[in-house]
Amino acid sequence: MNTIYADNAATTKISKTALAAMLPCFEENYGNPSSLHTVGQNAAEALFNARRTVAECLGCDPKEIIFTGGGSEADNQALLTGAELGARKGKKHIISDAIEHHAVLHSLKRLEKLGYEVTLLPVNGEGFVDPEDVRKAIRPDTALVTIMMANNEIGTIEPIKEIAEICHEKGVLFHTDAVQAVGHIPVNVKEIGCDMLSLAGHKFHGPKGVGALYARKGLLVSTLIEGGAQERGKRAGTENIPGIVGMAAALKEATDNLEANMAKITKLRDRLIEGLSVIPHSILNGPRDKRLPGNVNMCFEGIEGESLLLLLDQKGICASSGSACTSGSLDPSHVLLAIGRIHDVAHGSLRLSLCESNTEEEIETIIKAVPEVVDYLRRISPVWQDLQEGKRTYVIQ
Amino acid sequence: MNTIYADNAATTKISKTALAAMLPCFEENYGNPSSLHTVGQNAAEALFNARRTVAECLGCDPKEIIFTGGGSEADNQALLTGAELGARKGKKHIISDAIEHHAVLHSLKRLEKLGYEVTLLPVNGEGFVDPEDVRKAIRPDTALVTIMMANNEIGTIEPIKEIAEICHEKGVLFHTDAVQAVGHIPVNVKEIGCDMLSLAGHKFHGPKGVGALYARKGLLVSTLIEGGAQERGKRAGTENIPGIVGMAAALKEATDNLEANMAKITKLRDRLIEGLSVIPHSILNGPRDKRLPGNVNMCFEGIEGESLLLLLDQKGICASSGSACTSGSLDPSHVLLAIGRIHDVAHGSLRLSLCESNTEEEIETIIKAVPEVVDYLRRISPVWQDLQEGKRTYVIQ
Repeated sequence: MNTIYADNAATTKISKTALAAMLPCFEENYGNPSSLHTVGQNAAEALFNARRTVAECLGCDPKEIIFTGGGSEADNQALLTGAELGARKGKKHIISDAIEHHAVLHSLKRLEKLGYEVTLLPVNGEGFVDPEDVRKAIRPDTALVTIMMANNEIGTIEPIKEIAEICHEKGVLFHTDAVQAVGHIPVNVKEIGCDMLSLAGHKFHGPKGVGALYARKGLLVSTLIEGGAQERGKRAGTENIPGIVGMAAALKEATDNLEANMAKITKLRDRLIEGLSVIPHSILNGPRDKRLPGNVNMCFEGIEGESLLLLLDQKGICASSGSACTSGSLDPSHVLLAIGRIHDVAHGSLRLSLCESNTEEEIETIIKAVPEVVDYLRRISPVWQDLQEGKRTYVIQ
Repeated sequence: MNTIYADNAATTKISKTALAAMLPCFEENYGNPSSLHTVGQNAAEALFNARRTVAECLGCDPKEIIFTGGGSEADNQALLTGAELGARKGKKHIISDAIEHHAVLHSLKRLEKLGYEVTLLPVNGEGFVDPEDVRKAIRPDTALVTIMMANNEIGTIEPIKEIAEICHEKGVLFHTDAVQAVGHIPVNVKEIGCDMLSLAGHKFHGPKGVGALYARKGLLVSTLIEGGAQERGKRAGTENIPGIVGMAAALKEATDNLEANMAKITKLRDRLIEGLSVIPHSILNGPRDKRLPGNVNMCFEGIEGESLLLLLDQKGICASSGSACTSGSLDPSHVLLAIGRIHDVAHGSLRLSLCESNTEEEIETIIKAVPEVVDYLRRISPVWQDLQEGKRTYVIQ
């Protein structure tokens, strides 16, 4: 049985290009870029080139890139930066929204404990933040607005350009968690107009354990990890050269092929949505348009998402019920609750996230498998029984 | 010209064993360990096994290991933990010493800004912290003692077992930065009796960008990077499976071969110290005994360490003047100043750090090259001229 990997929002398989770029950094170019000798300086050159590549892909200056140990670290550092810069001016109010990744939401919780006040904006039924809500929420003491570029569960692409404009009009810093966006849709930090942006290598066929924070020139970035003077004193620790070089290679590859990949993946996604929408009492989570090319997220009434995943896995289909980062939790997705799904329905969710390696044949296999599994699970579901017998009312028509 | 890599304290070349362990995690076992499907669960199993291996090597329970993005991050998290646990009881005093790595010293600076009081103990002329100094410095409000296991510049192996005993007698938490020790000398956390211990993969032929924090069971560890529930909620971010697996493989290899490697490297080190000590007006920094097997650090009067490095590099010898993390700084090493070297002498330092791949032949090449380069630099040095002519007095006899 061939495995169909449709969980690319959780993590991706590294690309051959990225791995090929990394290997010489393990075996030959293994130096510490801070070392003055040739072995060290070769590593420094690899670091320099990787930084330039990442900067070119994002449309910024290499000096505006801080390499981190991942997307969560970049989010944490961005929020710390916004909070500390605000506090210097007596501004301790931060605006975000209800469907952010936990790297943002939990960082906000910590900041609340430190005396910051957080406003979490609602989203509409498709997961969109309304830029006008941002405008209304901004107060004289607002230090930072942080709104994700694209949601990791339901794929909603937020209107961050409009939000960034409002923030700058009001003199407020704007950060965007672009972990799900970079490498998947066009991301140019100058066009967006964000002050900070987070990304993670393993979400676009780069290696795990490496990410980056874009912070525009002139912004006094706070240090999350103290120590040596690496990353211009903003992130201590010997640079992960293989990881950084691999991430840069993956980002360049994704950027070079962006249009073609988007077209291909969008077509697969739309066929998948079409094919699964015939399942009765099912609903698409997130919008049809302004949606990540690879994201499909649906709820099926009367079933448990976890059982669905396990049975699909038996058929060789790797999928998710939502964020991998919160799997194992019994709580339903905060994202699905925020877009108005009730508790029971939110539990019956399925996220399929595609990449350019997925094939039309795989999509047809999924389209055949999911209804079978949903049907089987419904047949053994007491809730479904009640729905059929009119003892309960369908929530999804 | 063959390169002689004698800068293993800055970073090491990854071992073939570690790289071989990593490769399948890139290409086959690429899942997110939080994912419920087979690809994810295979990654979870790799993570589980790596954690068990690391725990076995350190003599602890797998649940006591938190994987991080490196040694600096582990140090930062350990200090945050000690500080926050102390603050809960109104204890805001921390004891450390003058020759810690900057990951510790700069974390302490940050804690000072947050209202903590820090006592930095002096070291003696060989870099040793006196355990009795620790005892005297402990106050009723002392939250944490953090003393490194082995110094990264001069190789001094600190009496941390004695220090840990004093701390526990007094009811104070004890952390040790063992980044230079793990994989090089025996490290058993239960024998040491530390509450927390930091390590970094790339210092023992593992990959860069990955480390670990040992935190004994029952200790409420603070989170430095907030987000998903990875690492039992103590370190968010998709786990760097290839990195973690590679680090575990490297640590196992280093542990399995520890005695043989120590014997071999110590012999090379002692021959190197012997060979370089014939250079007039030179001095060994750090002790002869209780010294890391691979560490040689010497000062040569009348020369600049940086020029020495560059000329040695031209001869294919990769060395360092001290910590790679502070290279580029014009300040002399804080470690050398702390052991009593005056500013001018501290500038003329050379650190050669060996590993089991270095050969006797390489050592003889270094023993031949260093005096030649020192002699050349002295001939063009105005300071040396003054010393020769009696216009200045030799500091190193």
